[in-house]
Amino acid sequence: MPDPRRAGARTAAVIEAIRQRLATRALAPGQRLPSIRAFAATMDVSPATVVEAYDRLAAEGVIRARRGSGFYVADMALPPLALVAGEPRRPRAVDPFWVSRQSLDADEGTLMPGCGWLPADWMPQDALRRAVRAVARSSGPALTDYSTARGSGALRRVLQGRLAGLGIDAFSEQIVLTSSGTQAIDLMCRMLLRPGDTVLVDDPCYFNFLALLRAHQARIVSVPMTPSGPDIAQFETVLAAERPRLYITNSGLHNPTGATLSLQAAHRLLNAAAAHDMLIIEDDIYGDFEPEPSPRLAALDGLQRVILIGSFSKTLSASVRCGYIAARPDWIEPLIDLQIATGFGGPGQFAAETLAQVLTGGSYRKHIEELRARLSRARPRVAARLQRLGVTPWLMPRGGFHLWCTLPEGCRAIDVAQAALADNVVLAPGDVFSAAQSAAMMMRFNVAHCEDISVIAALERAIN
Amino acid sequence: MPDPRRAGARTAAVIEAIRQRLATRALAPGQRLPSIRAFAATMDVSPATVVEAYDRLAAEGVIRARRGSGFYVADMALPPLALVAGEPRRPRAVDPFWVSRQSLDADEGTLMPGCGWLPADWMPQDALRRAVRAVARSSGPALTDYSTARGSGALRRVLQGRLAGLGIDAFSEQIVLTSSGTQAIDLMCRMLLRPGDTVLVDDPCYFNFLALLRAHQARIVSVPMTPSGPDIAQFETVLAAERPRLYITNSGLHNPTGATLSLQAAHRLLNAAAAHDMLIIEDDIYGDFEPEPSPRLAALDGLQRVILIGSFSKTLSASVRCGYIAARPDWIEPLIDLQIATGFGGPGQFAAETLAQVLTGGSYRKHIEELRARLSRARPRVAARLQRLGVTPWLMPRGGFHLWCTLPEGCRAIDVAQAALADNVVLAPGDVFSAAQSAAMMMRFNVAHCEDISVIAALERAIN
Repeated sequence: MPDPRRAGARTAAVIEAIRQRLATRALAPGQRLPSIRAFAATMDVSPATVVEAYDRLAAEGVIRARRGSGFYVADMALPPLALVAGEPRRPRAVDPFWVSRQSLDADEGTLMPGCGWLPADWMPQDALRRAVRAVARSSGPALTDYSTARGSGALRRVLQGRLAGLGIDAFSEQIVLTSSGTQAIDLMCRMLLRPGDTVLVDDPCYFNFLALLRAHQARIVSVPMTPSGPDIAQFETVLAAERPRLYITNSGLHNPTGATLSLQAAHRLLNAAAAHDMLIIEDDIYGDFEPEPSPRLAALDGLQRVILIGSFSKTLSASVRCGYIAARPDWIEPLIDLQIATGFGGPGQFAAETLAQVLTGGSYRKHIEELRARLSRARPRVAARLQRLGVTPWLMPRGGFHLWCTLPEGCRAIDVAQAALADNVVLAPGDVFSAAQSAAMMMRFNVAHCEDISVIAALERAIN
Repeated sequence: MPDPRRAGARTAAVIEAIRQRLATRALAPGQRLPSIRAFAATMDVSPATVVEAYDRLAAEGVIRARRGSGFYVADMALPPLALVAGEPRRPRAVDPFWVSRQSLDADEGTLMPGCGWLPADWMPQDALRRAVRAVARSSGPALTDYSTARGSGALRRVLQGRLAGLGIDAFSEQIVLTSSGTQAIDLMCRMLLRPGDTVLVDDPCYFNFLALLRAHQARIVSVPMTPSGPDIAQFETVLAAERPRLYITNSGLHNPTGATLSLQAAHRLLNAAAAHDMLIIEDDIYGDFEPEPSPRLAALDGLQRVILIGSFSKTLSASVRCGYIAARPDWIEPLIDLQIATGFGGPGQFAAETLAQVLTGGSYRKHIEELRARLSRARPRVAARLQRLGVTPWLMPRGGFHLWCTLPEGCRAIDVAQAALADNVVLAPGDVFSAAQSAAMMMRFNVAHCEDISVIAALERAIN
């Protein structure tokens, strides 16, 4: 009897061979694919294997069958993102876009315990309203003109002060504003990576790192997370064996686990990075949720091989969008050129000035203190409710709004998430966050969205 | 006597060989370069050639000389953008970033006849102010929340109506909002291009197309522009010979020439594109400046192989930033995924709702009519002043604010631009716009900025 695993590998090889020909355009849109018999001979496999491969490509819309005349490349077929890296497609429920697409386009009334941001009424709407009015009143050009190449000086000076508070000395000229936090990471990846470069992430990590790295055709390797940072012994082993060019992480409050990098782990991690000449992107997007600041890699390293990025989308506004990059002074000029080439600059001046206005007003600190206090009350309450369903936090985080949880014995997160979706509830199944696909029984919960008692009821239905 | 051109070619070959080793990391940061004698033997050139090549790389900061011990790769040297494509660096005055960098970071009081946008007081500041206040008042989530994946439905419906007015039938679901017009082109290039792909542009073309394509490591070919579009005979020849994957152009009012694509040229151009399966990005950013709409490629083609992109940065605001893409329905899903992966969505909701508010208010049409009338008066007046200096418009455009001009006999645009810069005046020398470097005697003027009489005086000084 044929070994099904080997048959699967042969089908995959045929699919890969066709994708190669499409990527290099050896097979052009509209062109007929080799006949099944001929291609079976070329690939030294059975015709049934080629049929299987062609059927799968047809199901993906990459090629089309024409009755009685074989298979053709779909008209101007684009390589969808998932195919660019030559990776097999994952089912949508563990695709890194699952949570973001469901959350962004959720209907009114959808419950979103899996979503990665706070409800609108937790955000400082009045302070934003005041800031918007003040900027509109104060200046015509702020409403109409392009920003300077680095972005608003006022906001960069605010950031300089905030970084200094974390022990990171940066001139405001070392800070570049970007359209969003994600775009900040994307710009750095465009500067630092070439297709095929190896990039290290935590397991689990923020799902969009995986989507972004796939768009860069990076080879992704991962190290398991512990409550005090990545497992350092494995970290050192992976660096020696895989020589990643770059490591992307959140240090202060890790997404999705809520872990905090310890000082000792930060020190060893930086030494390993130096020994293997690896760069680090430290995404500080959850920094303001910490009860007190934990060590930043960028502070220990002095912004040499660490690039700090962040945004205000989690604490202030995801609508008035702006991210930032703090990096080595000699990287700033090429970074600015790249941002002009690919976006003609970063955020709008109006957005940056509005954020500077809120951050320099007295109300921001008060807002953050209230957010922290409210989340500190919500975390244990939601954890207790989850535990009654057999859903157990992996860690009780120091801050933030995520709880990374183990589901009850025998529960698969994908199945629960798909059942919940039918019930109009967006969950965040663990493997979405896992490059190693090691989190089939895990799930991330947003405690702010779980205060609604109907979320727990819906989760109970989905589990059972 | 050695032929200096051949010596130059040998030096360039040595530089290219080192860059290759850096790009593939065969030479890693901190590593010692081969000795001059050894590398001369490897490359079969004289040691003097290698010295020359190493000196030039050292001047660029890519490598560093250490006294008495040879040359080393600069510590974590980044490939600056200009080097990524393996192209030789151009002097900054004909680098495609010259105009944008000078204009964006101009000091107060700098005169900017070379700049690509209107002065702040030509923009509808009051309408923007009213819109900003209305959006801030109407909705909390508009101030705080992420947009839907495609971006504001209100703005996409406005765009749908505007496109219909140009004969382009698109569902609002076929329209995706982006952070800026440039970012719209960048996203499409990320979907459509692979490094080394050939892309066709007009000669001259918008300089940032050249910067963007270089960031994509595209091979750029060009066709000379005529007053009614690209030279069609040459266009057909280049398509047959070079098989470009993509053509990027402005059709209605071309930047920098002000030319308008004729209906006949549009038809032939699309037929040639179809015959050679070439895609087209039509950048409609100057569309609203036309006295009456000219044919759009996207309208003739029905958004099959043409992607229409645009923004409001030239007519409404470059601060409240937003661009858009209208494309084939089956390209929208991968496009959304790509925009989430690389930016977690497009423009902020607040920006998009503000623009929708201005565009649906009655004042926008009046503002545009006033802009057109004001520019129609300014164009001949500025042209007459320029002509008195021997600066001759190549074409009197139907609309817009650019005049593409020939300088007096014997004047080199780079020299004039550099002299003017010392005088605090930013000019736009022709070769910045030219992939073929065919515009050494040309210059682009912004008529709105040339109304200031001191601009003409400064230009006169720079020419003489």
